[in-house]
Order: sequence, then structure tokens, then C-alpha cells
Amino acid sequence: MHNMKHFTSAFDAQSVRDLIQLGSYLKKYPNAFSDAGKNLTLGTVFMNPSLRTRLSTSKAAQLLGMNLLSINAQSEGWALDFSDAPMNHTTVENIREAAAVMGEYCDILGVRSFPTLNNKQRDDSEQDIIQWMNLSRKPLISLESATRHPLQSLADMMTLQELFPDKKPKVVLMWAPHVKPVPQAVANSFAEWMYFMNTDFTIACPDEVRLNEEFTAHATITNNQTEALKDADVIYAKSWASYAEYGTLHHNAEWMLTSEKLRINPDVKVMHCLPVRRDVELGASILDSSNSVVIQQASNRVPAAQAVLLQMIRDNYRNEINLSVSEQIALNQLA
Amino acid sequence: MHNMKHFTSAFDAQSVRDLIQLGSYLKKYPNAFSDAGKNLTLGTVFMNPSLRTRLSTSKAAQLLGMNLLSINAQSEGWALDFSDAPMNHTTVENIREAAAVMGEYCDILGVRSFPTLNNKQRDDSEQDIIQWMNLSRKPLISLESATRHPLQSLADMMTLQELFPDKKPKVVLMWAPHVKPVPQAVANSFAEWMYFMNTDFTIACPDEVRLNEEFTAHATITNNQTEALKDADVIYAKSWASYAEYGTLHHNAEWMLTSEKLRINPDVKVMHCLPVRRDVELGASILDSSNSVVIQQASNRVPAAQAVLLQMIRDNYRNEINLSVSEQIALNQLA
Amino acid sequence: MHNMKHFTSAFDAQSVRDLIQLGSYLKKYPNAFSDAGKNLTLGTVFMNPSLRTRLSTSKAAQLLGMNLLSINAQSEGWALDFSDAPMNHTTVENIREAAAVMGEYCDILGVRSFPTLNNKQRDDSEQDIIQWMNLSRKPLISLESATRHPLQSLADMMTLQELFPDKKPKVVLMWAPHVKPVPQAVANSFAEWMYFMNTDFTIACPDEVRLNEEFTAHATITNNQTEALKDADVIYAKSWASYAEYGTLHHNAEWMLTSEKLRINPDVKVMHCLPVRRDVELGASILDSSNSVVIQQASNRVPAAQAVLLQMIRDNYRNEINLSVSEQIALNQLA
Repeated sequence: MHNMKHFTSAFDAQSVRDLIQLGSYLKKYPNAFSDAGKNLTLGTVFMNPSLRTRLSTSKAAQLLGMNLLSINAQSEGWALDFSDAPMNHTTVENIREAAAVMGEYCDILGVRSFPTLNNKQRDDSEQDIIQWMNLSRKPLISLESATRHPLQSLADMMTLQELFPDKKPKVVLMWAPHVKPVPQAVANSFAEWMYFMNTDFTIACPDEVRLNEEFTAHATITNNQTEALKDADVIYAKSWASYAEYGTLHHNAEWMLTSEKLRINPDVKVMHCLPVRRDVELGASILDSSNSVVIQQASNRVPAAQAVLLQMIRDNYRNEINLSVSEQIALNQLA
Repeated sequence: MHNMKHFTSAFDAQSVRDLIQLGSYLKKYPNAFSDAGKNLTLGTVFMNPSLRTRLSTSKAAQLLGMNLLSINAQSEGWALDFSDAPMNHTTVENIREAAAVMGEYCDILGVRSFPTLNNKQRDDSEQDIIQWMNLSRKPLISLESATRHPLQSLADMMTLQELFPDKKPKVVLMWAPHVKPVPQAVANSFAEWMYFMNTDFTIACPDEVRLNEEFTAHATITNNQTEALKDADVIYAKSWASYAEYGTLHHNAEWMLTSEKLRINPDVKVMHCLPVRRDVELGASILDSSNSVVIQQASNRVPAAQAVLLQMIRDNYRNEINLSVSEQIALNQLA
Repeated sequence: MHNMKHFTSAFDAQSVRDLIQLGSYLKKYPNAFSDAGKNLTLGTVFMNPSLRTRLSTSKAAQLLGMNLLSINAQSEGWALDFSDAPMNHTTVENIREAAAVMGEYCDILGVRSFPTLNNKQRDDSEQDIIQWMNLSRKPLISLESATRHPLQSLADMMTLQELFPDKKPKVVLMWAPHVKPVPQAVANSFAEWMYFMNTDFTIACPDEVRLNEEFTAHATITNNQTEALKDADVIYAKSWASYAEYGTLHHNAEWMLTSEKLRINPDVKVMHCLPVRRDVELGASILDSSNSVVIQQASNRVPAAQAVLLQMIRDNYRNEINLSVSEQIALNQLA
């Protein structure tokens, strides 16, 4: 049995199932562990914009009684350098010092660091977040890295379980068009987490934008959007830049999911991680319909982050915390 | 008797008098309700710069024991879109999703959203803040909207009551020059709140910059600055762009209030909402004199925000809280 | 015996020794005074980027149970004006109002305000931070001002004491090259604090970049880097712009301290305040070696800030707090 030292992918969870269950429990009882993080500090570092991740992680920390330090690294702090070259240009602080210092100030770090989308090797290596992890010497939560977005995925898994508690659903991750190339992280991560779920999983996308096979070995892959849509229980719409022609935009507006296309499957649920460009990635009328569960997904970001933080607090700092959900349920029923 | 679901104008207060009284009580006993907001989250969204509103609202939430989530929406989050057009340009997230998500994370929302000053219909409709309100489905406090700034006005009313506890004062809202067109919100709002106050209320301004009549029906309006100044008890100096020629700058530097002009009324009190451009909107020597009450106004922003938050907490979440100030005073005298 | 009303230089401390001792105690028992700041508000104002100062001061306030209000003054608030000229240009709010308002909202202010590096008289006068201090009328902590960085220096003194508890060390402040002119504040401040320490203190720099003599009267000054390095116990590497030719960059890359140079003194400890430009100011291989104590310094920023805040809380608001460390140690041993 391993502990959760870091949380950067599904494989960091001791048990994906247990983590989902803990998230569901915390959604119901958000204040059940309000002292678990007392006198512990979460430090969040944003290298990129963030609304849901920023706020849901902050709220999760507050619900656990943690202190929070947060910084927009490149604007409120100093322009960061991730290289080993002499720093004679515009960057002011090296990741080596920044990460080590954050590690001194914080008990758990959360870091958001998008891919370059022009340096495949660097992005695939996850060198940036690994540097944060290794140099800070503290437990680290990915707030979205170059290739994965595990807090989003955990919230997505909670959403799937809420939607289909008693069924093995047909889940389709469906590529969506965009006006500019965007990261593969959410798509990769969703695919990775599906490995642990009891679903029938298909990825539907143009051939040019197939994801890195490392994430998709267990998936059925098709370029036939209509076939994929026909008998799906849920569609996860998401755009991503090409992996083969790394970082290039694939123009195919015809792939946008519309209400008209949903006529062949009018009850299908539609997911998206947000932010979403309406009528570019996804038809606005779908987002405003009962097909859409995007707000439910976003809402699940709070208990998902709370579950991860709580698990990491327990595993790294407070082994006395009892995370057995069944026992907690019994305690709550008594109280 | 209606509850205060939202706070976007004077008309949202069940009783302006009671709200002022609650603010005055909280100014005296800032920690009297330090648990009232426990486990509730205030989310503040800033679309524009803010010093007083940002800090006074944050402090008010802290004094009530609330958790706080705050975001500079357009820079820390994603560029927001308020339209229904396909999002194929620079905006990344639509208000529909942003507001719904904030509503999931927060129990009360505070939103600052300035007017365009070039689209009169849009500004007058208050569409932006109404979208935040409707789409978040949560109680909302205006932190200054296109046409009103009610937290400023409540603090202004508290200030007037402190200055003239036993008198019906002559109050003059006086237009001031500026180097660029600025919103009418503070002026509109002040005029609107005056409707509920026992004062003799005059607006003095060049004819070209008369405010929207919707806000000024109860006011005497004059373009004679000297007459208005002569027997005033208090002057509220404030610049605003033209409403008739919507959003244009009216150049008339002669309207700047100076110490020289005050010689005809040397004891008059001078208000301004801040920030103020010294020696452009208002003579610096007035701001540095005992005529000025601008810091008293700014100070009242904390208890004003605290009163509004407390009232909304009680009305929407915790009906058991007793806000009767007379009873509270008795309790404090016992304690 | 004077109280610590403000903290802008070493001379504000009643006893530098006691403050260091308090910092060391708080490093060991960070939660020993977790209620000392309850219901008090620290307001931090950043006019410039900050990582360590921002986060360590925030954490220190949290450890003392203070409320925290923080603002990036020029971006989240309004562009500030420090002059007396009519404000008919781009600045929106004068320091007179901004400081007075912050003083109303906060019990202790922390302000970061870098030098202009082009107006020697203004920088030397410390007019900006003095305006914040006088106009806010509240106890003020410098988070780095035009000429000093006392929180950094206190952390540096703690570090020296940890390194050499039983020895009078030979300490060398050594100028370092840079790609652009940077403030003298850390160097000035370190020199100023050394006045209170039992050390043998040398400043090694090219003649062109000698510091303001006001800070260096007690120091041996040399332009011979090798001599200074030879028998030093610790080197504080730091770049600064010329004081004589005010604000100009002195180009002398040969002054960069390298591992090769350390061969004549392989056990010397190397300090730097961070951020540091690797292989420009200081050899990267030194930073990554056991010679470097830069992370220890950065870590000491938290207890240093906590000691200052605690002292100011006691001296200005809560005289009943007992800061006698020896008594505290006894209490902790009992508990």
C-alpha cells in the first residue's frame, strides 16, 4: 500500500475508487474535516490563468482549515527561468530557488504550468512540474500540467458516477474545433482516468489529432463522429492541438457538436471542462440545455480538490486521520 | 416585508434607515457578529480596479467570519464574453458559465463591473450585473455596476448621519471637472439614496451633464454653482461624463471647487468617493483641510459592507440571527 | 525604553539581539502566539514584484492569527501619484488619500516601494515610505524601501547566528555583477544591521560602486576580491547599482563569484537574498553546493517577519503579551 505523496496523475491515487468515494462524501459533508489541515499551509502557484482551479482549490483548503498562500508567479513574483543557461536575459529567478523557497513556506504545493505546445519533448517530459516537485521537496498537487489535469479528471469521474451509478456507460471523448491550438492535458488526463473506470470508452477525433498513444491504449478510437455519438451515454467535448504535428491547430469546424447532431441521441449527457468557446467548440444551445452537465462538473471541482488535499494531509502529515468513508457515514448518522 | 436577496440599489434595502443604523452599530462593535458568516463563502469578482471596495468588502467578510474567494476576472481568470455571438475572437469564457460556476462555489457574490460609457442602452440596462445575478443564482452585492455604487452610497449616508445627527441638512451633489469621462454610477447612486433621507437635496452641474432623470426626480437641479454652494451644509464633489451626449467628456475646469470658492461658506463639509484627482476634480487644499470628510467616508465603507453582508446572511441563510440593533445594544451593555 | 512603532531599519528595533532571539524562538515554536494578532488586520501594499516578502509576511500574519488585506497597488488598485502637482496625467489616486484609507482599514501596514534609481535625492529621502507611514498614521513595516530591506536583514542576522553561534565571524558583503542596475537596499540594510552584530565586517566591491557612506562607516572596504575572500567565514554576494554615478550599471563580470574562486576558501558560506541570476551574479555551481545557505536565509524570512509583527502588536496594541523568550521557553518545557 503506497501513500499519496504527490498528485499529478491517476496513478498517484492509491485507489481511484476510494478517492472518488471520498470526494462524494465531502460533497455531502463539506465541513466534516474542518480541522484536518489546521496549521498546515497550501501554497498555490499559477503560471497561467485559472478560474475554477484557483477558486475550487482555495475553497477546498479553507474547508479543511488550511492556511493558503497563493501567487501569480510570473506577474506578482519574478519572471521564472527553467533552464540551466546563464540568466543574462529577461528572467529574474530560477525554478531552483523559487521551488525550494516555496517548499520552505508550504506543506503542500499546488502548481499550474501549461505546456509550451511548441516543444514536444519538453512538454512530454513534464520537466516543469517535476522540477517544482523535486526542488520544493514537498507534496505537490498538479493544478494542470503540460500533459495532465488530474483534479479536473477526478471531478469528471465523480460526475460520471453521479450520472451512472448503476450502469457501465458508453463514454465518448470527442474532439472539438477551436480558433487556436490548446493543450491536450484535459483530454489525456480524462483518457488516463478512464482506465480505472468501468465504462465503454471511445475517443472520436479526426485522424490528424489523435492523442499520444500512451494515454489511449485502452480506448476505442474512431474518426466517425456520427457513429460515436449514436449510442453514447455521455460525450466529453474538448478541443486539443495536434500531437503528431505537435501543437498545430486542426481546422475542422464541422466537428462542432450541435443540437441538430444530438437528434440521433437526444438524451446524451454532454461534458466539458470549461472554459468553453460557445458556438466554436460546442453549440451554445447544448450548453443551455438539460443535456449539459458542465456546471455539475465544475461544481465537483471543490470536493475533488478537498478529497485530494485531505488524502495528502493524512498520508504525509496526519496519519491519525481516519478516512474510511463508511465509518465517517456511521459517525455522521450518530451525530 | 421583503428580504434582501440582492443589493444593487437603495431599493433592495428593506429599510434604508435600519441598514444605516446597523452599519453604525457595526462601526462601534465590529466583532459583534464574528461567527455570523461561518462556513459561508463570499466570492468577489473584479472586472475593474478597486482599492476601497476590494479591501473594505474583504475586511467586512473577515469580521463576519466568512470565507473569501476573490478573483480579478479578466486577468487572473479568463477574458469574459457577455454576448451571444460565436466566441471566435479573443474572449475565452462566457458569462453564462463563469457566473454559474461562481454561484456553485460561493454563497454570496460581489461583482464590480463598470459601464462601457459608449453603449448607453447596455449600460442603462445593467445587463452585465444582471447576468451575474441571474446566472449565478446566488445573492449578489454590487461592488459598483454600470449605473450605481450602492455600497459607496450606504457609507455616504452613514457619513451624512454622523455629520448631521439632529438636522435636516442642505446637501449639494456638485459636478466636478476631469481629464477623461468617468462613470455616473456614484452620482446616480447618491441621488437615489437621497430619496430615502431627510435632506434638502440639490444637484449642481452644467446643463450638458445632467444625470439620467430616473435618478433625480426628487432633486432641485441648478447650473449655478455659487448659489448652490452658498448655503450648503455639505458638498459632494464628483465628476461624471455626459448622459445626454452619452459618455462624452465635458470640459469646464471652472467648476473645480477651490478653497477660494469656499470663502462664501467656510464651514461646509466636502465629500468625495475617492479616488480623486487633486487640483483637477477638487482643490488639494480642500482635501487637506478640515472641510474634507473623504477619509471618514472611506472608513465607513467597512461597516457599510459589513451591514449589507450581515443582512444578506440573515435574510438568505441564517434567519435565526437577531439584527435588532436596540436589542444588540442592550446585550452589549450587559456583557 | 522605546517601543517599536515602525520597522523600517535596524534602528527601529529596541534591541536587535532580542529581536533575533524572538525570531529564533518563533522558528522553533511557530504556533506559540497563534492568538496574538486576533482581530487585528495587516495590510500589505505591493508597488513592485515580490515572492519571498509577500509570502513570508502573509504566513507570519497567519501564524499570529491576524487578518490579512493585500493589494498590488498599481495594478489591482489605482495608479498612484506621490507628487503635489495637479493630477491631470495618468495617475488616478494620490498617496495622501491611498495611505489615509489604508490606515483606516488596517492596524499594521506593510509597504514595498523600490527606489527610482534615477532620482538620488528622492530615493535617499525615503519620501515614499515616509508618506505611507505619516499619512496612514499606523505602525508600518517596510517590505523593502528605496534604501533598506530590514525584514531581509533580520532574516540574514538570524542566519548568521545559526551559522556561527559561538564565534565572531569574518563577514564579507561582496558586490556582484548584473545585467541591469538594481537597488542598493539589501546591501545598505545588511551593512546597517552588521553595526549591531559581533562580527568582523568587510565590504568588497569595485571603487565605482561604493555604497552610501552613511551605511558603511563601521566596515572595512576593499576593492580586492581575492583578499576579502581568502579568510572570510561567509560571503554575502549581491549586486547593486552605482551610488556615486547614481543608478548606473557597473559592468564587471569578473567579479562573479565562482566555484573556482572558492578553492582558496572551500568551506566559506555563501549568502544571497534572492532572486539571484545564476551564472551572472553568482556561479550556479555555488548555489547548488553545500556552501550556499540561500534557502536557509529565505526560510528565516517567516520567523523574522513573525517576530517583527509580534513585537509591533505587543508594543502598539497588546502590551499584555509577554515576549520574554526565556519565560516562553520555560512555559513550553512545562507544556
